[in-house]
Amino acid sequence: MLNQHFIDMCGQKSVIRELFMYGKERAAEIGYENVFDYSLGNPSVAPPQSFTDEMIKLLQESEPVSLHGYSPTLGIDSVREAIAKSLNDRFDMNYEKKDIFMTSGAAGAIAHAARAVTVPGDEIITFAPFFPEYRPYIEETGAKLKIVPADISSFQINFDAFLDMLNEKVMAVLINSPNNPSGIVYSTETIDKLAMILTEKEEEYGHPIYIISDEPYREIVFNGCDAPFVAAHYNNTLTCYSFSKSLSLPGERIGYIAVNPACGDSALIVDMCGQISRGTGHNCPPSIIQLAVSKCLYETSDLSVYEENKNILYTELTKLGFEIVEPGGTFYMFPKSLEPDAVAFCNKAKDFDLIIVPSDSFGVPGHFRISYCIPTEKVKRSIAAFEKLAALYN
Amino acid sequence: MLNQHFIDMCGQKSVIRELFMYGKERAAEIGYENVFDYSLGNPSVAPPQSFTDEMIKLLQESEPVSLHGYSPTLGIDSVREAIAKSLNDRFDMNYEKKDIFMTSGAAGAIAHAARAVTVPGDEIITFAPFFPEYRPYIEETGAKLKIVPADISSFQINFDAFLDMLNEKVMAVLINSPNNPSGIVYSTETIDKLAMILTEKEEEYGHPIYIISDEPYREIVFNGCDAPFVAAHYNNTLTCYSFSKSLSLPGERIGYIAVNPACGDSALIVDMCGQISRGTGHNCPPSIIQLAVSKCLYETSDLSVYEENKNILYTELTKLGFEIVEPGGTFYMFPKSLEPDAVAFCNKAKDFDLIIVPSDSFGVPGHFRISYCIPTEKVKRSIAAFEKLAALYN
Repeated sequence: MLNQHFIDMCGQKSVIRELFMYGKERAAEIGYENVFDYSLGNPSVAPPQSFTDEMIKLLQESEPVSLHGYSPTLGIDSVREAIAKSLNDRFDMNYEKKDIFMTSGAAGAIAHAARAVTVPGDEIITFAPFFPEYRPYIEETGAKLKIVPADISSFQINFDAFLDMLNEKVMAVLINSPNNPSGIVYSTETIDKLAMILTEKEEEYGHPIYIISDEPYREIVFNGCDAPFVAAHYNNTLTCYSFSKSLSLPGERIGYIAVNPACGDSALIVDMCGQISRGTGHNCPPSIIQLAVSKCLYETSDLSVYEENKNILYTELTKLGFEIVEPGGTFYMFPKSLEPDAVAFCNKAKDFDLIIVPSDSFGVPGHFRISYCIPTEKVKRSIAAFEKLAALYN
Repeated sequence: MLNQHFIDMCGQKSVIRELFMYGKERAAEIGYENVFDYSLGNPSVAPPQSFTDEMIKLLQESEPVSLHGYSPTLGIDSVREAIAKSLNDRFDMNYEKKDIFMTSGAAGAIAHAARAVTVPGDEIITFAPFFPEYRPYIEETGAKLKIVPADISSFQINFDAFLDMLNEKVMAVLINSPNNPSGIVYSTETIDKLAMILTEKEEEYGHPIYIISDEPYREIVFNGCDAPFVAAHYNNTLTCYSFSKSLSLPGERIGYIAVNPACGDSALIVDMCGQISRGTGHNCPPSIIQLAVSKCLYETSDLSVYEENKNILYTELTKLGFEIVEPGGTFYMFPKSLEPDAVAFCNKAKDFDLIIVPSDSFGVPGHFRISYCIPTEKVKRSIAAFEKLAALYN
């Protein structure tokens, strides 16, 4: 018989997806240029030309049977080697091929990492505000996802609440910095404090506690922001990366897990991920996409537009009276809504054709997410709409 | 702590993979041209030029942000529509977009299908000889995989043994025709008899019993072979397809599930697959690969070489005294080994630089698999090696 669990999941609509669909319908009515759709976190800038060139070169010049042939389950050797080297060059680490597992984006990375370091019934802690898809990524493994309430003054870690939640069943802590939805980057101080606590608790509990570090926005960090490479601060780190944002390739589903070799079990964990993928039918990301990104590891799309958009929105919305913790990266910000009910607030925004996402599904009340991966001219034109929205509350 | 279950899986080496590695080492010693490596089921002919052309055209002419943007979880609408239409055109079916779920190859398709139609503890039956990866694809869902012993006279279904194994916990039957490793295609008579039995048992048990039809070799069928489209013979069929073999794209991980709309729950099952993929981090196959294959749905690689190779091997090996059920498709055959111990036999074959796979991991003793997706000239030269091998037993 059909599995009722998955039928029940079908009923849980995504707020973000519904707002996006509303925005599309509204655009059909009044014109795309008149709808300020801040709902989706889809990159708005093209991939670097070098990615397109590498793809075409592979297609034109490689022997096609081997180009499109099976990748080893753990990923293509040369690709894993190139990724290890690029991390070592950029973050002064010691990765080798054996420490890298190729995945279908960060989603695949997190789902594999969580299965590797837990058994059903174990706990994984994450911190609000958090990406809502963490629930299925973690809970479908059989582990429990526990949420530490937000420190809304800074969106750094609420350590008191975290300490209260730690217990022997916690096998991993899932962090996301730069953060979706707040745009905040965890400081070196935050990461070092987290590492210190986990090291103490590992000793107390007699088992490792891994950091699963979800880093799809690692390359989108704004001028002057302190953005530590997490694995450099904590040995038991599984870094989950996606090229979706840095190379503007969300649809091509390509990323990796890098297991810090200093954790001692990195090759084993990578091998385990290969076994996990056998059972989920994942069986490695596409060969040609692996090969193409491996030639673009030191490049990004032109990400400067996101900082420009952030600066405009942060300045203008602050002037309008919005309370905002200034983002250090990503293409998100997470202001307080002007009334406690974020859903009601975001519904009112629709009257001005502003599509913004209420904070509740991110685990925080009374805020809203702006995904400012849209053209800058549209960001500028949207300020008048925010002004009208704010005027309702004055 | 690390999940011991996946650590234990790491210890289970693949016989096929080990033989392939042996073949590579031997080729380094004595030259690639002198090793007759029949171990791997990797296509040996290029993808159709139209696939390469479509990929380049997409890269050169499409707006890159939307080309590489997120695919909907169920797959790109136009791709799902094109696949439904191609199946209707070719097999006189009534698929619509809602019945198609895009997957990472047939592996992803089977893993999703099995999760949709079972809960942990349920049973799925398959038939020896069977693809060894069915074990992780099924058992990692929590369902049990039960194996019906082979009918070695024909490699059609051993119905007596199947009837003995049916019970109320059986929610699905997993078939693979054309078959890896036997190369046999289930006849219309076989499929109709299977459909009749399942229909009776559905009534008796009061729940559906799905056929999960694994069809990556559907397009590799030899002249004159009766090769029914399974879903046309049984409403509750989930057709799992991969473009790996027909378009020679195994590394690009692209396939689909087509749920027969006549089953009544097709749109629900497809939606469930979308939910399943959230939990495994699958989140749809790459956009550009989806788009490119959707332009090549009526094409294949030049598959004629496989039939030519089959003809040579079947004729010559039969002359040498091998007992073989003649394949109706694929690029495999599954002769009886010349001694009961298939592993010992395949080890002796290595002395003549013949790399063939013992049958045990396919669930049948005393046979071996030949994957004849290698150049025809090499097939011809390998006959002398088979002759020397056979001479050991005369």
